[in-house]
Amino acid sequence: MADPANTPPLERPSVIAAHALIKEYIHYTPVLTNTTLNDLASTPQSTSSLADTPWAGQEPAKPKIRFWFKCENFQKVGAFKVRGNHAQALALAARTMGVPAHIVMPTISTPSKIAATKGYGATVIFSGSTSTEREAVVEGIIKQTGARLIPPYDHPDIMLGQGTMGLELQDQVSQMNGGSKGLDAIIAPCGGGGMLSGVALSCEGTGIQVFGAEPEFEGADDCKRGLASGKRIETVKTLTIADGLRTPVGAYPWTVIHDRKLVRQMFSVTEEQIKAALRLVLERMKMVVEPSAVVGLATALFNEDFRRIVEKEAGDRGWDLGIVVSGGNVSVEALGKMFEVSPAKAERQEGMVGNDGEKVAENVAG
Amino acid sequence: MADPANTPPLERPSVIAAHALIKEYIHYTPVLTNTTLNDLASTPQSTSSLADTPWAGQEPAKPKIRFWFKCENFQKVGAFKVRGNHAQALALAARTMGVPAHIVMPTISTPSKIAATKGYGATVIFSGSTSTEREAVVEGIIKQTGARLIPPYDHPDIMLGQGTMGLELQDQVSQMNGGSKGLDAIIAPCGGGGMLSGVALSCEGTGIQVFGAEPEFEGADDCKRGLASGKRIETVKTLTIADGLRTPVGAYPWTVIHDRKLVRQMFSVTEEQIKAALRLVLERMKMVVEPSAVVGLATALFNEDFRRIVEKEAGDRGWDLGIVVSGGNVSVEALGKMFEVSPAKAERQEGMVGNDGEKVAENVAG
Repeated sequence: MADPANTPPLERPSVIAAHALIKEYIHYTPVLTNTTLNDLASTPQSTSSLADTPWAGQEPAKPKIRFWFKCENFQKVGAFKVRGNHAQALALAARTMGVPAHIVMPTISTPSKIAATKGYGATVIFSGSTSTEREAVVEGIIKQTGARLIPPYDHPDIMLGQGTMGLELQDQVSQMNGGSKGLDAIIAPCGGGGMLSGVALSCEGTGIQVFGAEPEFEGADDCKRGLASGKRIETVKTLTIADGLRTPVGAYPWTVIHDRKLVRQMFSVTEEQIKAALRLVLERMKMVVEPSAVVGLATALFNEDFRRIVEKEAGDRGWDLGIVVSGGNVSVEALGKMFEVSPAKAERQEGMVGNDGEKVAENVAG
Repeated sequence: MADPANTPPLERPSVIAAHALIKEYIHYTPVLTNTTLNDLASTPQSTSSLADTPWAGQEPAKPKIRFWFKCENFQKVGAFKVRGNHAQALALAARTMGVPAHIVMPTISTPSKIAATKGYGATVIFSGSTSTEREAVVEGIIKQTGARLIPPYDHPDIMLGQGTMGLELQDQVSQMNGGSKGLDAIIAPCGGGGMLSGVALSCEGTGIQVFGAEPEFEGADDCKRGLASGKRIETVKTLTIADGLRTPVGAYPWTVIHDRKLVRQMFSVTEEQIKAALRLVLERMKMVVEPSAVVGLATALFNEDFRRIVEKEAGDRGWDLGIVVSGGNVSVEALGKMFEVSPAKAERQEGMVGNDGEKVAENVAG
């Protein structure tokens, strides 16, 4: 990976050049549609479902939305990361190129991710979870081996590589629509922001609007908050279930998202909204995705600020909305845990049923 | 649905005619490939993994297998059933045609299946779980409403409709292989046998061999046992996790599978093998499938009898093997339950880790 000073300019032609470089090493992932989810998104939310939200008591928006899901859960190593970096993706790239790879991972990484990374032939070295601990280990390896550092997301090359997905999505939707009409907008998840800013670059000059989505839990919505204050937030400490989005947005992505305003607006969604979107994708689209992958869909289904924009700007015509489904790296055990009915909760729910319809004030669905 | 006496002959041209009739109402489901699963299937099983099987102490087979997955989990209503019948599929077909539908379902049906069936506008009537109880309720409805009975699988029209999937699979693989080489064989799940026999009809005269797969738990392998004894087994009582395959093979499918020998051989797989195959499809292919959908894959991965056939007949060339992935109707809760780590088991596993590498004789993975 080049010194950031010598990378191509951050603009659409550089994304196209990056695509030519990497396309033989990646899958051209499918774009899927789903009538059930279009119908759901195009139905106003009930006033009762808005009761405990910032939009309580307000008239629900009436947007018309046609989804186009770019399914990077079907990408090599199960995520968009193979277009730029990281862990499994880097291990695979190194093996493909015959280059040794040393991957520093936090000790608490999920065993399946560790095993998969080793499976691609990389040497895995463990570190503590903080960036300070990680960087100390990385320093040591570089000194020992002379290896070159590939940062996880904060690098122009990574942004350009990950933005290639946006080019494919544009072409695929245009083809699927018979060449007549492409996308109106794209929503992409934002963690470190490499992929979101890359997708924004891929849309520059096309008229396609780009939005970002984050979890709001424990301050994971750092990019949204940063845009509001005009200053990038550099540390985040959150345990949102969208574990791919726990990092603060990086300095290079910030130049695209904030300084050049190529991302129109950021939205955030709750843990429950992420779970609800996850269930819909699993049960209705029959796809395995990780929680981070559905924050865009959750925004379109549940965020009234976003839904009002669509209603106001698109009216009866509606929007063709690209949703970046970023990855599917989740174990069946983790999925089970997210949706498990604990014995205590099951008992209380049975209690409710036996209660002959009388309303129980306590919220048992939490 | 016509009186069985007046249906088209059970042969390939009738499947082609059925496809012309139904294709505008169904999805043309994708055929997917997966390098990781090809590699797994083409690697001999370890002798230790065969220890507790009928092949203990024998040399593991060395087949070469390239999978082509026909993904009917992406079909309308989430399963191949829309090509012929049942519950949700029938409700959807009735709604499409503007015909009222009365669906008799056992009281113990999963709430998601009941809700989905009602969601397509059908009237759902409940009955007990035995066929006697169900038939009594059905009789009553027919008397009251004058409705015509659509049996769940034992009808020539249903076999022909469900066999249309085999035609698509043949065309798709041939196209994906550049027209040069098609399938060598197909494995399809067998419950009532409507789909398996339909797929067998779709392959008649093509040179493609058709195999069937069943769970072996509590006698669910009725078709295999029936072929061995030469007599169809008419009742089965099993609670295999492959809940779509708990029914005995029907009389019409039997004429194709047994009398006309269009299915070469039946194989059965254990509950653990079904779960292992399910995990691979979920975690590696990122697809949501129901347990019934993976008995074919489990056969190719774990059944040494099948694997020896491939090794012996295909040698280094290997087989292009079509796998019918029949459906994806499973709730996230049910999936979670299948893979949950019980507190007791988790403790024992921690105990092992704390055991400083000493081998624990007891099988904790069961």
